[in-house]
Amino acid sequence: MSRAYDIAAFLSLIGSIKSEDNPALVKQKSRDFYWYSPVLKRELASVTADVVVTPKTEVEVATVLAAAHELKIPVTARGGGTGNYGQAMPLTGGVLLNLIEMNKVLSIRSGRVVCEPGALLGEVDKATAASGQELRMFPSTRATATVAGFVAGGSGGVGSITWGGLRDFGNVLRLRVLTLEAEPRALELTGEDLHKAVHAYGTNGVITEVEMPLAPQYDWIELILGFDKFEAASAYALALAEQDGILKKLLTVVAGPAPHAYFLRHRSLIPSGKSVVLALVAPHALDPLEAFTRHFKDAQFLFNSSRAAPEALQGLPPIYELAWNHTTLRALRVDPAITYLQVRYPEDGGLAFIKRLHEKFASEMVGHLELIRFNGRIGFAGLPLVRFTTEERLNEIMAEHEDMGAMIFNPHRYTLEEGGMKQTDATQLAFKRETDPDGLLNPGKMIAWEDPDFDFSARKNFLFPGLEARALAVQS
Amino acid sequence: MSRAYDIAAFLSLIGSIKSEDNPALVKQKSRDFYWYSPVLKRELASVTADVVVTPKTEVEVATVLAAAHELKIPVTARGGGTGNYGQAMPLTGGVLLNLIEMNKVLSIRSGRVVCEPGALLGEVDKATAASGQELRMFPSTRATATVAGFVAGGSGGVGSITWGGLRDFGNVLRLRVLTLEAEPRALELTGEDLHKAVHAYGTNGVITEVEMPLAPQYDWIELILGFDKFEAASAYALALAEQDGILKKLLTVVAGPAPHAYFLRHRSLIPSGKSVVLALVAPHALDPLEAFTRHFKDAQFLFNSSRAAPEALQGLPPIYELAWNHTTLRALRVDPAITYLQVRYPEDGGLAFIKRLHEKFASEMVGHLELIRFNGRIGFAGLPLVRFTTEERLNEIMAEHEDMGAMIFNPHRYTLEEGGMKQTDATQLAFKRETDPDGLLNPGKMIAWEDPDFDFSARKNFLFPGLEARALAVQS
Repeated sequence: MSRAYDIAAFLSLIGSIKSEDNPALVKQKSRDFYWYSPVLKRELASVTADVVVTPKTEVEVATVLAAAHELKIPVTARGGGTGNYGQAMPLTGGVLLNLIEMNKVLSIRSGRVVCEPGALLGEVDKATAASGQELRMFPSTRATATVAGFVAGGSGGVGSITWGGLRDFGNVLRLRVLTLEAEPRALELTGEDLHKAVHAYGTNGVITEVEMPLAPQYDWIELILGFDKFEAASAYALALAEQDGILKKLLTVVAGPAPHAYFLRHRSLIPSGKSVVLALVAPHALDPLEAFTRHFKDAQFLFNSSRAAPEALQGLPPIYELAWNHTTLRALRVDPAITYLQVRYPEDGGLAFIKRLHEKFASEMVGHLELIRFNGRIGFAGLPLVRFTTEERLNEIMAEHEDMGAMIFNPHRYTLEEGGMKQTDATQLAFKRETDPDGLLNPGKMIAWEDPDFDFSARKNFLFPGLEARALAVQS
Repeated sequence: MSRAYDIAAFLSLIGSIKSEDNPALVKQKSRDFYWYSPVLKRELASVTADVVVTPKTEVEVATVLAAAHELKIPVTARGGGTGNYGQAMPLTGGVLLNLIEMNKVLSIRSGRVVCEPGALLGEVDKATAASGQELRMFPSTRATATVAGFVAGGSGGVGSITWGGLRDFGNVLRLRVLTLEAEPRALELTGEDLHKAVHAYGTNGVITEVEMPLAPQYDWIELILGFDKFEAASAYALALAEQDGILKKLLTVVAGPAPHAYFLRHRSLIPSGKSVVLALVAPHALDPLEAFTRHFKDAQFLFNSSRAAPEALQGLPPIYELAWNHTTLRALRVDPAITYLQVRYPEDGGLAFIKRLHEKFASEMVGHLELIRFNGRIGFAGLPLVRFTTEERLNEIMAEHEDMGAMIFNPHRYTLEEGGMKQTDATQLAFKRETDPDGLLNPGKMIAWEDPDFDFSARKNFLFPGLEARALAVQS
């Protein structure tokens, strides 16, 4: 593919639908947080769409898709652009389908909310609060991330300590997606079929409506606990996670010296060198949590939002903006040499495994764990901070993690497979054949489509030819 | 102790507080479901109080306790009398403190309800429903059990699949208890201190107020799934339990032929010989559950309350009245030779262990499992139905369970320790010294108090001398 898209003809086909082709503005809307990764930062630096279209209705989305189909122009759907795997970046140009103005909350019932795709997660929570409900989970980018962007590009986050991940049955209830065909069809996905489109980066249909489950809304209390050692913090967090009667929404461990060094607006609360546990707990869980915590002599309460003076809360970001991928963001802002990994540790290894890993890379890696439920059990997701030197060294560190038995969800790759299970997802591939026969939706992100013979076991990066062709075309 | 209590003096001291000394009525209020056990049925047959008092306020309770203290009369507190370990039976007579008329719901807030001790669990749920909330858990005797009776005599039940047990931090928020002294004091217990009085059978204080956490209220859907084999039903239930995104309140496995044979009002729904899984799921979890269930070829939906015709629902008891101890009750009603065990299986044994056990006792035991959360993990609680022949054989079966590595919470014993962890609970014992220096509260139930030198390892039953003395006195 190259830059030879007939954008003028496209704009004429879509008529009055809002569009923008100012290159600077288009480029701005063509990025996400890919620059968390020094590798993606280099590889995707020149990525830009040709035009941004911002539909307001599903009918307008269908018009855009039909036009793109007719002219064979790639279409990459985007919500808030808060991904960090380049999920919403149009590798080979074309149309950036900006869904941010389709942001209505359509219905709220007991246990369920229906939204348009571009509804911001924080706004959904505001809308559902009146019914005493809120979304089960959100990423740390809640304020600017959209519900469909989360479903298509995320995997879990704040709330996963209770509910598991987005891929689990029950954590997404229904998706409505449009196909990219001459006459786009609307498909309703529920139950098993949700696996076709959840976490598919918009490669196999454009989400135009989302139904999500709701949980009870609480005025979650923010806690920061300090520990002298990462190990003790991790042990405490695991034990607290396993307390079934203490309702939590977030449980994060960040090793010293990161908290004091990187959590700038909280740093006066956190003594230098301390490892911390960050927690969100329901108000009625606070007293039990304090009683439980007394069993841990080395745990020290550093912050409790329910007991802080109003002026002490002023200027503090929500605590979940210190967690998940925001931990990396905070670190990066202070030290641009920091990058990160995404790790799942083996179930039987536990804390000893994590300790061994961090000892091995003590000079390059700082621990960051998120407690989650996974297949009915409490587990650690790792998002360690890594001091970047070279791409080779970064790959070595990841390979070593894998050799020791951990699983890496490589955040330095832009494809579904390399950032995920490192194998073809036959369900998503089959669905792409059905929804996007010409391969125009978010090209370059699904290896199984682009290169069915790709050998995942060879540990070589997939290079999307369309990205290279595009880069050459843009240069020329 | 013997029958030499000065009841006339007691009645004079308590003045106008409601009391009843008609022996037939007193005897009726002196029993619970102890007769589930053929052993307790024999041992406790003659147990009766001398008088029942039914206070309406905490001040009246204090008056009763002061009077009992002055006259050294035992006091046994009782709620709905739905226990099945003889928890509320006055082994050595005296005052039966009937708390059923102290039943007000005092306050309902987000996540919390405060009640008087005798509030029925079902009534608490009705009161909290308007706020979209309900209790986290209840026993299968919800309709007639009281909140303080549950806290003092229960351990968990419907809801434990999500929240764990009553002893877990956070599942009881606050208790107010009166001491049995010359001037009864009111003690407020929260946090760690709750362990002093939760599941202490009322041996160390009389609960006069309870604060419990609330969960969101849903119109839970009742499901019955049929399987040809107990093993397949158990495997399905375990896998479903581990689905973090599918919100459940109950998950029970009952082996064939019990469901068709004993669930009389449901029997037309359940083919003969089938093993079943009983489930309560949130309405928004039904579609995900159905999708999940399609992965289990041998699972067959037999009943779904949300799709049943209104006339089909008529006359059916709630499904939780087929689960937990109600399973035993249903069996007993059909076959009086049935009794049961309460088992915790070793964590690492899993389904293979349970299978081995049931194969070993195939001619005497029918499987009944309740899925629960325990220390952050999904586990099975076992309440197998056992065909009773002799007490010796029953003891043999239990000993064999223990020898194989299971833990027995012996429902054929009336003491805290023998029905529980088979060791002294130092916290509860210390609290009894503080609240009941004369040992008048529910005598005979705490071995650590009655016989500090009792050897639990000897596998011999504790025999409470007061029970024997009382039996002789009553005979004479």
